[in-house]
Amino acid sequence: MSVPDQTLRDLVIGNRILAHQNVVDAYGHISVRHPSNPEHFLLSRSRGPELVVEADIMEFTLDGKVVGDDRRPPYTERFIHGAMYEARPDVNAVVHSHAEETLAFGLTNVPMKPVIHLARSMGPHVPVWDIADKFGDNTDLLVANVDHGRDLAERMGDAAVTLMRGHGFTAASASIVDVVRLAVYLPVNARVLTMAMAFGSYKALAAGEISGRSGFDPGLPAYWRAWEYWARRAGVGDRLGEMP
Amino acid sequence: MSVPDQTLRDLVIGNRILAHQNVVDAYGHISVRHPSNPEHFLLSRSRGPELVVEADIMEFTLDGKVVGDDRRPPYTERFIHGAMYEARPDVNAVVHSHAEETLAFGLTNVPMKPVIHLARSMGPHVPVWDIADKFGDNTDLLVANVDHGRDLAERMGDAAVTLMRGHGFTAASASIVDVVRLAVYLPVNARVLTMAMAFGSYKALAAGEISGRSGFDPGLPAYWRAWEYWARRAGVGDRLGEMP
Amino acid sequence: MSVPDQTLRDLVIGNRILAHQNVVDAYGHISVRHPSNPEHFLLSRSRGPELVVEADIMEFTLDGKVVGDDRRPPYTERFIHGAMYEARPDVNAVVHSHAEETLAFGLTNVPMKPVIHLARSMGPHVPVWDIADKFGDNTDLLVANVDHGRDLAERMGDAAVTLMRGHGFTAASASIVDVVRLAVYLPVNARVLTMAMAFGSYKALAAGEISGRSGFDPGLPAYWRAWEYWARRAGVGDRLGEMP
Amino acid sequence: MSVPDQTLRDLVIGNRILAHQNVVDAYGHISVRHPSNPEHFLLSRSRGPELVVEADIMEFTLDGKVVGDDRRPPYTERFIHGAMYEARPDVNAVVHSHAEETLAFGLTNVPMKPVIHLARSMGPHVPVWDIADKFGDNTDLLVANVDHGRDLAERMGDAAVTLMRGHGFTAASASIVDVVRLAVYLPVNARVLTMAMAFGSYKALAAGEISGRSGFDPGLPAYWRAWEYWARRAGVGDRLGEMP
Repeated sequence: MSVPDQTLRDLVIGNRILAHQNVVDAYGHISVRHPSNPEHFLLSRSRGPELVVEADIMEFTLDGKVVGDDRRPPYTERFIHGAMYEARPDVNAVVHSHAEETLAFGLTNVPMKPVIHLARSMGPHVPVWDIADKFGDNTDLLVANVDHGRDLAERMGDAAVTLMRGHGFTAASASIVDVVRLAVYLPVNARVLTMAMAFGSYKALAAGEISGRSGFDPGLPAYWRAWEYWARRAGVGDRLGEMP
Repeated sequence: MSVPDQTLRDLVIGNRILAHQNVVDAYGHISVRHPSNPEHFLLSRSRGPELVVEADIMEFTLDGKVVGDDRRPPYTERFIHGAMYEARPDVNAVVHSHAEETLAFGLTNVPMKPVIHLARSMGPHVPVWDIADKFGDNTDLLVANVDHGRDLAERMGDAAVTLMRGHGFTAASASIVDVVRLAVYLPVNARVLTMAMAFGSYKALAAGEISGRSGFDPGLPAYWRAWEYWARRAGVGDRLGEMP
Repeated sequence: MSVPDQTLRDLVIGNRILAHQNVVDAYGHISVRHPSNPEHFLLSRSRGPELVVEADIMEFTLDGKVVGDDRRPPYTERFIHGAMYEARPDVNAVVHSHAEETLAFGLTNVPMKPVIHLARSMGPHVPVWDIADKFGDNTDLLVANVDHGRDLAERMGDAAVTLMRGHGFTAASASIVDVVRLAVYLPVNARVLTMAMAFGSYKALAAGEISGRSGFDPGLPAYWRAWEYWARRAGVGDRLGEMP
Repeated sequence: MSVPDQTLRDLVIGNRILAHQNVVDAYGHISVRHPSNPEHFLLSRSRGPELVVEADIMEFTLDGKVVGDDRRPPYTERFIHGAMYEARPDVNAVVHSHAEETLAFGLTNVPMKPVIHLARSMGPHVPVWDIADKFGDNTDLLVANVDHGRDLAERMGDAAVTLMRGHGFTAASASIVDVVRLAVYLPVNARVLTMAMAFGSYKALAAGEISGRSGFDPGLPAYWRAWEYWARRAGVGDRLGEMP
């Protein structure tokens, strides 16, 4: 089934925003569930997100197999994305990132709590997945097959974000716009939290302040404003669609 | 009543400087009191400050109602600005920002004191406003109506800056040039203070060293120098007016 | 007496490098002693260093008076420079900066020691000058007259750098190339030292490792390499003279 | 013996990537062993790596002597490179850097352990070399002759990286692509580790997670992806060869 042009453009915009905002570098990626086939997802070929264009997008089944006769090298860690779509019908877009401000939380027992309103969509609890718990010490920490991906998804449960020890994080949400926003503000929240912890005791967001997460409305001007701004800064303003 | 062209240009310059200096990102805004109608103020439509041009400026009453038949979406948090102008006749320009270096001070009991001479216009005491104190935990922390705005203004009292827990800060001053300067150096002061606190006990500015605040003279070359420099760096040097 | 063209160009290069390397912003300045009249020095008019060109350079006597009938506004703090040239015949170039990484050392009792070889020209001991010690609390911390400048120079003694509490630092050296190098690496040394102090006890440079300072040889390719590199990055490579 | 054009281009790409990624500034350098004469190596003349082009590359013997009648000034510290190639037949490319995030580990007794998978090629143990241990306090800390270089190589043993107290680090690996990758991610690892140490106890990479180092395969798309991405960002994408 063919993919709407704007979906491809939005996925390119997502790649470029994440690169421009330093959420990803040569590594890290963003995918979207196929709009008309929930058993497939769309993800760039193996390429730095800053360089991705529409023609780089490949189609995969949820167990990470390439759809069609596309022979270009895919990302090793496409299994992260497939496992999320398999386990979570509410999820339509996934980001995997090595953003360094989040990494220390995955190496220690310090919980990564939401403390700023811009990051409230991260939810009240961020689990930490350690690949060694199930697969031992002889891995390169990458999510390199379906089993790794499913174990990650199981640890994530219904959370919006999971930290991956010594590796990075995976974020999942209802749309490309929403998951990019979450991925951009997660490192900001991590920096603010790190600073507050050094000061002493701090006040995290309350349950009521967080629960707005499920109420994401992409039609709000305030959400579109950030998407438009980041896209223009990243040089892909010409790919922007209509505000929903 | 019509707005002088240079007022609109100065407001655009203020938007662009704050964006270029990383005081605001997609969010945060700057307003100015209407030069000939103190019951109105001027503020961009809902748009990232880096993208704002003169045509984006809208006019509001102090309770946040749009003046005229302008149907463009306004910022949700325009009530911050109206409440400041209502409570403080000395205030002619307001900045709201989420600058991350200041956020930890709003999450803890650590006072944000002035320690560098460039930030002395922040005054001796920066109050912290917690929206939950009056409105409980079921908010998204935004100043979304007149009541929120007035509560913030009440907490601010006659201070130059108020921290907003989990959200950011609001700064108010006599002019656009002055409030931009304050908003630029507040995060610098926060970084220096954070570093000094890690070293141990530190010396804050003395009362006499701070009290120059009321004596702001926009005609001084030293003040104009920063405004000109920041404007040129932000690419809006062509909008600069004459040095007062 | 006329000033050699290359001296003016070198002073412009110094301004631009310091701005590009974030050692100065709208504030901070660099001067050079007049090559043929040791009782005069050269310094830009009141302007952000990133914008300075040759035509902005003014000439001053050591007590900060403008030479000739130049009516352009000078920097308020030109007295820093004059007092250095007056007190220190070995000094031919001076930088004043607010570089934030150095400020915390001026607010506390923590000594700013040299720990990296690139900063060894800062010398073994960096005194802290507090304007309040002699002039009380009713200043704006600026070096606004000859008395302030001379008190600063007295505190500095024969050091290469003095911290100014709540304000910044002043560095003095034998040439423009040398003082720019010192001003660029001082904040780097401060960041490394801050990190090392958080780790615990650290090893500072030994006396023998520092004492090379007096042996600065501008003819060494390794010194010229940095000057050339910084100048080209700052967009003023076309002003470079011959390697001495 | 003549050097293949792509080797020269790769060495230029390496220089530019290291500069663009802030691993080197005016100082620091990268070399490669001569592809057809293992007793020689290739290194730029004394020049900031961001400015290096193919014509700047000089040829040296392992004791740091210039090959041929090339009279251009070489880097003072070319002895670092020669000593590595002399002591380690497995090494074909060397980076020397002053990256500031790594420096504090060389000033203290805190071990720089690998904690993120992208840095696993740094190996399990990073020794610290202190020039003063053998050569006393009357040096400028530079590796200025063959004896300094050989002492550094001896301390390094079979490690991939050695810290140099008060100075920087040296990294050695099988190829230009591999050593650049190591040099880029070493400061990232240092920042994450510094943050984790401030949180409390942390989990470093396990032995099995690190041991993949010897298995570097430059033919993997995932390795090429970073090389291509960094080269394009640094403006030298036109020099890229074919993916191996």
